[in-house]
Amino acid sequence: MLYMTRMDVAFPPHLSAAQIADFQAREKEYSGNLQREGTIVGIWRIVGEYANHCLFDVPDNDTLHEVLSGFPMFPYMKIKVTPLAKHPNSIS
Amino acid sequence: MLYMTRMDVAFPPHLSAAQIADFQAREKEYSGNLQREGTIVGIWRIVGEYANHCLFDVPDNDTLHEVLSGFPMFPYMKIKVTPLAKHPNSIS
Amino acid sequence: MLYMTRMDVAFPPHLSAAQIADFQAREKEYSGNLQREGTIVGIWRIVGEYANHCLFDVPDNDTLHEVLSGFPMFPYMKIKVTPLAKHPNSIS
Amino acid sequence: MLYMTRMDVAFPPHLSAAQIADFQAREKEYSGNLQREGTIVGIWRIVGEYANHCLFDVPDNDTLHEVLSGFPMFPYMKIKVTPLAKHPNSIS
Amino acid sequence: MLYMTRMDVAFPPHLSAAQIADFQAREKEYSGNLQREGTIVGIWRIVGEYANHCLFDVPDNDTLHEVLSGFPMFPYMKIKVTPLAKHPNSIS
Amino acid sequence: MLYMTRMDVAFPPHLSAAQIADFQAREKEYSGNLQREGTIVGIWRIVGEYANHCLFDVPDNDTLHEVLSGFPMFPYMKIKVTPLAKHPNSIS
Amino acid sequence: MLYMTRMDVAFPPHLSAAQIADFQAREKEYSGNLQREGTIVGIWRIVGEYANHCLFDVPDNDTLHEVLSGFPMFPYMKIKVTPLAKHPNSIS
Amino acid sequence: MLYMTRMDVAFPPHLSAAQIADFQAREKEYSGNLQREGTIVGIWRIVGEYANHCLFDVPDNDTLHEVLSGFPMFPYMKIKVTPLAKHPNSIS
Amino acid sequence: MLYMTRMDVAFPPHLSAAQIADFQAREKEYSGNLQREGTIVGIWRIVGEYANHCLFDVPDNDTLHEVLSGFPMFPYMKIKVTPLAKHPNSIS
Amino acid sequence: MLYMTRMDVAFPPHLSAAQIADFQAREKEYSGNLQREGTIVGIWRIVGEYANHCLFDVPDNDTLHEVLSGFPMFPYMKIKVTPLAKHPNSIS
Repeated sequence: MLYMTRMDVAFPPHLSAAQIADFQAREKEYSGNLQREGTIVGIWRIVGEYANHCLFDVPDNDTLHEVLSGFPMFPYMKIKVTPLAKHPNSIS
Repeated sequence: MLYMTRMDVAFPPHLSAAQIADFQAREKEYSGNLQREGTIVGIWRIVGEYANHCLFDVPDNDTLHEVLSGFPMFPYMKIKVTPLAKHPNSIS
Repeated sequence: MLYMTRMDVAFPPHLSAAQIADFQAREKEYSGNLQREGTIVGIWRIVGEYANHCLFDVPDNDTLHEVLSGFPMFPYMKIKVTPLAKHPNSIS
Repeated sequence: MLYMTRMDVAFPPHLSAAQIADFQAREKEYSGNLQREGTIVGIWRIVGEYANHCLFDVPDNDTLHEVLSGFPMFPYMKIKVTPLAKHPNSIS
Repeated sequence: MLYMTRMDVAFPPHLSAAQIADFQAREKEYSGNLQREGTIVGIWRIVGEYANHCLFDVPDNDTLHEVLSGFPMFPYMKIKVTPLAKHPNSIS
Repeated sequence: MLYMTRMDVAFPPHLSAAQIADFQAREKEYSGNLQREGTIVGIWRIVGEYANHCLFDVPDNDTLHEVLSGFPMFPYMKIKVTPLAKHPNSIS
Repeated sequence: MLYMTRMDVAFPPHLSAAQIADFQAREKEYSGNLQREGTIVGIWRIVGEYANHCLFDVPDNDTLHEVLSGFPMFPYMKIKVTPLAKHPNSIS
Repeated sequence: MLYMTRMDVAFPPHLSAAQIADFQAREKEYSGNLQREGTIVGIWRIVGEYANHCLFDVPDNDTLHEVLSGFPMFPYMKIKVTPLAKHPNSIS
Repeated sequence: MLYMTRMDVAFPPHLSAAQIADFQAREKEYSGNLQREGTIVGIWRIVGEYANHCLFDVPDNDTLHEVLSGFPMFPYMKIKVTPLAKHPNSIS
Repeated sequence: MLYMTRMDVAFPPHLSAAQIADFQAREKEYSGNLQREGTIVGIWRIVGEYANHCLFDVPDNDTLHEVLSGFPMFPYMKIKVTPLAKHPNSIS
């Protein structure tokens, strides 16, 4: 089941560069695993912003929340979730 | 080059059911062609709305505008375009 | 799987009182069936507005869109869908 | 008398992990009591956000404000209250 | 139990001056009755707008919706309802 | 001359509980005096929010600004002022 | 007593050019009279919009509403009123 | 003196295709003249929308309003004007 | 050439009362000079807010930006600039 | 390929004047280089704001994101990107 998300990241000012780098490294690993297992089927940077669009394929709403709240940077992200259905004009 | 779009459709009240059906038939054919040629690489219905998210792969901005303004229902659509870049965490 | 919706109804000015009454009668029947079969598990009027909050229990996103777009008054409704997950503090 | 609420939580950056955990523990107990006594008749996590939809059944506005402002995390929550009435299409 | 409302009126363009005058006459009578019976305890014009603030005293949410949806001009009004509680600094 | 206000309070995170309590005590006294002298003719808590609706009766705009900016918590309040006129349907 | 207003004009599509010209002629006369009597002390076109900023000097809120609702084009205007007070840095 | 504008076009539904084509032809001529005389120094289509960004070079505010309100499609355009100043980092 | 501005002031929480008083004193002097030289032709407090409307008369956009960015409290102000043109109904 | 951007700068309160001056110096150099190489083809200050409009000419979305995220003050900027296409009325 597919969901489109938009995630915007905003670190609080008190985080050090090292702390931020650590968050980003763990985020990269977490995100990579989700891609390898097919949970994230698309991830794109939004040009000019510290933000992304992500396409998730999960069995249900509860799994999606579990996955999203597990992102290391979840406390610093604003996430908007859009549930998707098959489009009648889709040929796939 | 990838762009995410969100398209919202709103027909004016004076269109007849037949006119709307004709628009939708032509839209389906136009959209199908774009998918077969690889210009649209993803199209999804937004649940509960007469709207979609569409992922376009085009060589440049001019081509994208030409494609979007060629939709039969373009005069009745509100389109928001988000240019995308490669995400540093993407494994693809 | 649960989703909260908010639906706002706005009829175009050219509809007659009889047409509106017909829409409302068909809407009542459609809504009643969804409640009897357990698809709608809660429906409430928002005080002072021609709008409601509705709680849906459906197997997936596609079913929800099929149900929502099947409402007789769907063309005259603005629907916002919020996917829900189990709350960690819920005792049910 | 029913009210739908949406609560969004945002902790200020100076709170420690221990302080947050303490808030969450007291919140869970407070929320559980409200559910057991029938004041909260539904509580759901909004997918991807530190937020919830809550359905309250209280005798009047004053009681609702007393209950809401009693949440341990009230100072860190943004609450939107929507009063509900019986829906004419409700079969319950 | 008190509620503050804001009502904004917008007539569709096809209404004649006579029809509007008729609506306004019935509205005045309806509003006057609500004031005499104590349901409306305050009504004020918002300067420069076809809008008002109204303070309602009703036993519950259902009654408020019944009263509001009974306004002759209800189909042409956008109503925002704010439930009120006793203020701790109020001396009344 | 009447004005409706909405005041939203937000304390900065560095204030201590004692400082907040002191602000609230002075606010209560200031508000009580305004009520006793007839400057505030109504004050209500907005359910679920650290906010109020207040109805002021003052001779002119300058007096209203002087009164509002004299609130002890003025630096921490966001105030929206709506000038009111007599409503043609008012029977008072 | 001073108030700043912003007025945005939007004619409904069914008005003829002659009707619009008539409205504009009566508006010009009405506005000129208000300027000559000192009720309007400043009127400026907002560049690129069918809108203006207007500075009114009136004895009270009721007078301002009477003046504003008397504009021939009042039914086609959206008006926002901002009450003004003497600025502490003003040298006038 | 430079100003950036954004213009959004929305034709009312009652205009015929011929009327729209006539508006567009006159618009093209008007816009071309402004470019040739150096009043418009840049004009770009916003991808996916019936809208543009335009960079104007005019002697003053009054001239800009005269130019903008002279567009044949001015009644059907929503225009937002942003006055520009020299940027300290500009090398031109 | 005239421009209407709205300026909203928000001091960061770490400024001391003395620092704020110093800013305000320098602001008063700067503003007074601008009024005496005719650059500011009107300045009004917005009732209930730490904000003002200001009417500027300057030769061009660059001068206005220079004047605005010279305000001692500029880093703590949010400024919205509206360019004005002569109104066709103005009798001045 | 052209893109219009709007960049708004907001420094966090803990930065010293020296740190800000250093950021601004590096920003000026970075921006100057982009102008000299033809990546930035226009940069303008928005009057009254710490913000600019910038016109970029880059080969693709990825390059634009690389350029934008390379600005020394990128972490303190909110950037909105609008992709541009050739306008049918453009004579250039």
